[in-house]
Amino acid sequence: MLYIGIDLGGTDIKAGIVDKEGYIISQAKRPTSAKRHYSEVIKDMADCAKEALDSVHYDLDDIASVGIGIPGIGDNEKGKVIFCTNLSWYDVPLREEMQKYIDKPVFIGNDATVAGFAEYIAGVSKGTHSSVFITLGTGVGSGIIINGKPWSGFHGVGSELGHITLERNGILCSCGNKGCLERYCSATAVIRMGREELKVNPDSLMMKNCNNNPENLDAKNVFDAAKANDVSALKVFDEYVENLCMAVNTVIGFLDPEVIVLGGGVSKAGTYLTDAINKRIGKYLLFKTCGYSKIQLAELGAGAGMIGAAMLGAY
Amino acid sequence: MLYIGIDLGGTDIKAGIVDKEGYIISQAKRPTSAKRHYSEVIKDMADCAKEALDSVHYDLDDIASVGIGIPGIGDNEKGKVIFCTNLSWYDVPLREEMQKYIDKPVFIGNDATVAGFAEYIAGVSKGTHSSVFITLGTGVGSGIIINGKPWSGFHGVGSELGHITLERNGILCSCGNKGCLERYCSATAVIRMGREELKVNPDSLMMKNCNNNPENLDAKNVFDAAKANDVSALKVFDEYVENLCMAVNTVIGFLDPEVIVLGGGVSKAGTYLTDAINKRIGKYLLFKTCGYSKIQLAELGAGAGMIGAAMLGAY
Repeated sequence: MLYIGIDLGGTDIKAGIVDKEGYIISQAKRPTSAKRHYSEVIKDMADCAKEALDSVHYDLDDIASVGIGIPGIGDNEKGKVIFCTNLSWYDVPLREEMQKYIDKPVFIGNDATVAGFAEYIAGVSKGTHSSVFITLGTGVGSGIIINGKPWSGFHGVGSELGHITLERNGILCSCGNKGCLERYCSATAVIRMGREELKVNPDSLMMKNCNNNPENLDAKNVFDAAKANDVSALKVFDEYVENLCMAVNTVIGFLDPEVIVLGGGVSKAGTYLTDAINKRIGKYLLFKTCGYSKIQLAELGAGAGMIGAAMLGAY
Repeated sequence: MLYIGIDLGGTDIKAGIVDKEGYIISQAKRPTSAKRHYSEVIKDMADCAKEALDSVHYDLDDIASVGIGIPGIGDNEKGKVIFCTNLSWYDVPLREEMQKYIDKPVFIGNDATVAGFAEYIAGVSKGTHSSVFITLGTGVGSGIIINGKPWSGFHGVGSELGHITLERNGILCSCGNKGCLERYCSATAVIRMGREELKVNPDSLMMKNCNNNPENLDAKNVFDAAKANDVSALKVFDEYVENLCMAVNTVIGFLDPEVIVLGGGVSKAGTYLTDAINKRIGKYLLFKTCGYSKIQLAELGAGAGMIGAAMLGAY
């Protein structure tokens, strides 16, 4: 059997036809156009999935289930989206709507959670005892895989590492709290720290990398300058790695998974980043002589959302 | 069948004969005398268990297994204590030693983890989907129960909530890191904040409660003064509740268990404490319209360690 996996993003809908090993045999994409009524978006999700199916000459008889990764909180039991803030979706009967077009079991999961599940099925954390996937992007998302299953908690609101407190009374977060982890560990945090540093040291290579406009500075500009041993960029990178070590140590101290997988834009810094974390993490570990979670880079890239969503119905 | 549960503490060894429902039918106690060689302590643990068994006229034929809760880190697979800092035990073959005296399967767990498991088997979180037990004492310990099993992580170093970061570059912790959660959420934290407040406001009722000697101030002195509406004590209590709310929100944002159980000395403040947390926690929750973990007081008290240890072999 095959599985439909749909990655519902704020910008694009991506649908993939995925086999049980997590291999995408075909995919299609169209704009989300998020301002439309949800019913139109969901019809497009179904059409997009059918397009991917047609292109490899399969039909719905070959499909076991549909999985959907959403940028928000869902209730898989009731088949509903509780909310997706970026889409202005509240209490949307996603399963019921989808089944109007594709009459198969429909599973719903959070986007970061399904991406973590994809890495567990077909990526870097394949077959591990337990893993925590952390997306380091505009914000910080996460997915927990325990005993071969995604874990979203009892009320479906778990694995939101981005909004646990890393600094009591720290920087104000978009969620309204102060000092949330994502204020210190996201790409946005790298940019914030880079800009602050540029105010003091405008001669930094970071300035050249952003074409002399700190408004355009991105995380890659900072990391590239750090890799070139620019002193200011190294200072930013060092502080960022310290922040990440605290986050990684929090994951270890709380759940101690076999593997911690880093994904999202920041993870493109590659082994430059993971080597730096591994070098520094020992300082934070409570039990310095015991083993600790392997820190790995996500492997699946942009397909992870489709793969993980599809696999919700397979395992 | 019955189960032996041994609670190995820095001060006392407690051994209980426990039935499958987590009821202690008999118990015995003797001093740990922690300075002795581990082999002597373990012999005493076995003798203590046999004493408890004799007193109710059962014998070893009635016993299915022995469980031991240790104040440190164990490797249940290998049957070893990795270390118990307070006992100066490192790499101790606990199972092998115990089996010299009681030739039964021997299970090893961390003390806070087994206490949380006890609450799951026979206490306030009985039969729940998932729970996180937090002991608020001199330090902060914790135990995670997922799918009916204690969770200590892949390397056995998980559920150490006390040492996750709550304040980047915060107060120095005994573990060597800065800003660990237990610096803000333990009974020790209540005392620290109380003493600081007494320096500014020596007329506080807290001063009377500690017999005019801040060196003797304990958490109960602070809570009693707060309950009596002493302004200074209320200020300390408020800050402490804020800290606890951040910790509780971290547990919810990470794992979202069905129940969070508060134990340890501080939890004796009872519903005065849990009411205050419930009143304040909404401010921190990321998803304010979703359900969140029920915050409960531990029920089992001093027997929890024996019960939880015994139950390691039963489920």
